[in-house]
Amino acid sequence: MALVVQKYGGSSLESADRIKRVAERIVATKKAGNQVVVVCSAMGDTTDELLDLAEQVNPVPPEREMDMLLTAGERISNALVAMAISAQGAEAWSFTGSQAGVVTTAVHGNARIIDVTPSRVTDALEQGYVALVAGFQGVSQDTKDITTLGRGGSDTTAVALAAALNADVCEIYSDVDGVYTADPRIVPNARKLDTVPYEEMLELAASGSKILHLRSVEYARRYGVPISVRSSYSDKPGTTVTGSIEEIPVEQALITGVAHDRSEAKITVTGVPDHAGAAARIFRTVADAEIDIDMVLQNISNTAGRTDITFTLSKANGPKAVSELEKIKTELDFSAVLYDDHVGKVSLVGAGMRSHPGVTASFCEALAKAGVNIEIINTSEIRISVLIRDAQLDDAVRAIHEAFELGGDEEAVVYAGSGR
Amino acid sequence: MALVVQKYGGSSLESADRIKRVAERIVATKKAGNQVVVVCSAMGDTTDELLDLAEQVNPVPPEREMDMLLTAGERISNALVAMAISAQGAEAWSFTGSQAGVVTTAVHGNARIIDVTPSRVTDALEQGYVALVAGFQGVSQDTKDITTLGRGGSDTTAVALAAALNADVCEIYSDVDGVYTADPRIVPNARKLDTVPYEEMLELAASGSKILHLRSVEYARRYGVPISVRSSYSDKPGTTVTGSIEEIPVEQALITGVAHDRSEAKITVTGVPDHAGAAARIFRTVADAEIDIDMVLQNISNTAGRTDITFTLSKANGPKAVSELEKIKTELDFSAVLYDDHVGKVSLVGAGMRSHPGVTASFCEALAKAGVNIEIINTSEIRISVLIRDAQLDDAVRAIHEAFELGGDEEAVVYAGSGR
Repeated sequence: MALVVQKYGGSSLESADRIKRVAERIVATKKAGNQVVVVCSAMGDTTDELLDLAEQVNPVPPEREMDMLLTAGERISNALVAMAISAQGAEAWSFTGSQAGVVTTAVHGNARIIDVTPSRVTDALEQGYVALVAGFQGVSQDTKDITTLGRGGSDTTAVALAAALNADVCEIYSDVDGVYTADPRIVPNARKLDTVPYEEMLELAASGSKILHLRSVEYARRYGVPISVRSSYSDKPGTTVTGSIEEIPVEQALITGVAHDRSEAKITVTGVPDHAGAAARIFRTVADAEIDIDMVLQNISNTAGRTDITFTLSKANGPKAVSELEKIKTELDFSAVLYDDHVGKVSLVGAGMRSHPGVTASFCEALAKAGVNIEIINTSEIRISVLIRDAQLDDAVRAIHEAFELGGDEEAVVYAGSGR
Repeated sequence: MALVVQKYGGSSLESADRIKRVAERIVATKKAGNQVVVVCSAMGDTTDELLDLAEQVNPVPPEREMDMLLTAGERISNALVAMAISAQGAEAWSFTGSQAGVVTTAVHGNARIIDVTPSRVTDALEQGYVALVAGFQGVSQDTKDITTLGRGGSDTTAVALAAALNADVCEIYSDVDGVYTADPRIVPNARKLDTVPYEEMLELAASGSKILHLRSVEYARRYGVPISVRSSYSDKPGTTVTGSIEEIPVEQALITGVAHDRSEAKITVTGVPDHAGAAARIFRTVADAEIDIDMVLQNISNTAGRTDITFTLSKANGPKAVSELEKIKTELDFSAVLYDDHVGKVSLVGAGMRSHPGVTASFCEALAKAGVNIEIINTSEIRISVLIRDAQLDDAVRAIHEAFELGGDEEAVVYAGSGR
């Protein structure tokens, strides 16, 4: 008997019919002799509807109350899935994050899991029940207030529960049926991967792949939880995220896939005096506004002792970063802040590049051949990323996928509504 | 500084605009120097929408999960009211029933409050916050599962919190502005009452008045909590439910009002053998199906040693009671079960009838003059109720209201949407 944690996303739960289909899968897993723990996101549009109501009563709602509001969504979907399971001949108990022992920091809207003490979940399993846990939510260790885990929170709940329960596998169901060598909507012959090591999945997630959220992969890696990425619309096996690249023999290490990201913007601060501390002052200003940056480029000083500093960040944070930097323009004596949101990032990920020199050269050659100009380049041990014009992003993904011969023999299946 | 508990019903919270108006009243009460605890029902149609979703996934949903589902409604309205309060310059914390210390029995769907330990509410008040508590819900003492209090649950939450916090008053806001001598939609010159003693309010609630739920009045009486019934659409003073009829000097005791009820049906079991235990067997059968009965009439035996037994019950329970009784027809050897849902009940309530003989006579004379035939009559020390044809109910209410000179000089104000 295996202990299986299953997580279902909002699009898999957007109607009563879809909830019934999810319940069928859960009951089948249970009847196959497994103990089953299920984590559900909020139904389809529930979160957006709640956000809309909040906006109407208060454009800047207090974060504590926002967490109280939004967590109702997962509570509703969990209870409905429990009812649907019951209609199909198994029994289920649903639990809030708090009841399931998901203990977090007190940072409303973006809490981190401190501990998971799922004794009530274990009790339910031992009594033969399916245990459902509301995703995305927990309870603050200090204040006992309801918290939410931020983006990708339900994936993180599922992985954290799987770790705490020592589950055999954590299955993440959504409308895509696995991890591909590239987005099948851009590259028709993209190939589904059977297995991806944690480190590569982390790089893919950080490079724009939306299959799994970075935090859940980090959590899975730390606790050695195997994640199975599957579609809730098919019975195909999906992709398993497990193991380390360290375990792969050097001669078998390969290039794994191409990721792309349209969510970033580029900021260039021009005419920065080239003295110690100027760059630090710029990055501290951005960091103090709680804004993460991604790629960085500093040009060589010109003859006047001035330089340009360029970095990328999420488009959502662009306007705020610009206004914060404008505030220190006089103090730092730079020329201007330039903002450009027509950029895209394409990345190649694979443990093989550690042992195969020339990957960077082949990567750049492929882009050159496709007429794509590189604006910033950034690498890790197992990843190369470049910033380019957004209009050329699809071409760049196809050129690199082709150059590294990542494609399969058949066309990838893309499900209707595969929008995430 | 007074401690005020305010309860707002679903129709007062059915849109973002109404939520903002409720928040204005709360903030005004707070700024007037009071400590304020607020209990909210779910927004307008939320409960019906959730029930509809539940019905779609499981026509007979497990009660534990139904409670988990429905309690999301109050969580949403409370968080939104907290946000609206914050937008208007005060600060509020919302709490679930569990967080507010509302401890109940484990009977899902109809739990009873065992204890209220509102230490987090007290903390919030002491720190200057408005404390919002989700109505209708609690946490089971034994299982730690989420429970609901059944019909009228939010009123009961408000009164129970007022008792536990030793509040100065519990204000119940809805779309009616007080307790009237009769339903103003039937009797245009019905008069709003300033004060109603607990015993009379209990009789009115049990006789079909929907202003306050019976349980909340019982709770208020037991703990001596004054209830103020008010409209969320006006600033008029409303009606205060407080004090005992024992405190009213006999010569001042009066007839208070007329209540009516269209929610009951009548069942007659005919040809019942007139031996000891036959009636008991009938009422036990109904009780075992968890059905409450109201009025009872047993005819005198006919010459064949057979009798008819008649009782009333909620229409909602009618079909179930009939089918349960049919099951014992052979065993008990009665003739038939007759079902009649075209009945109505009209009641006169007032402490004055204890000391004024002749009230029953005047009551029956008024009905006779209006051409209304009485089918069953039932009395308590301070109430007379009769069962009549439903088509004559409005006429009967008007005739009694007139006969006891309960009307005022002006027409009552009826608010739009005053449907409860």
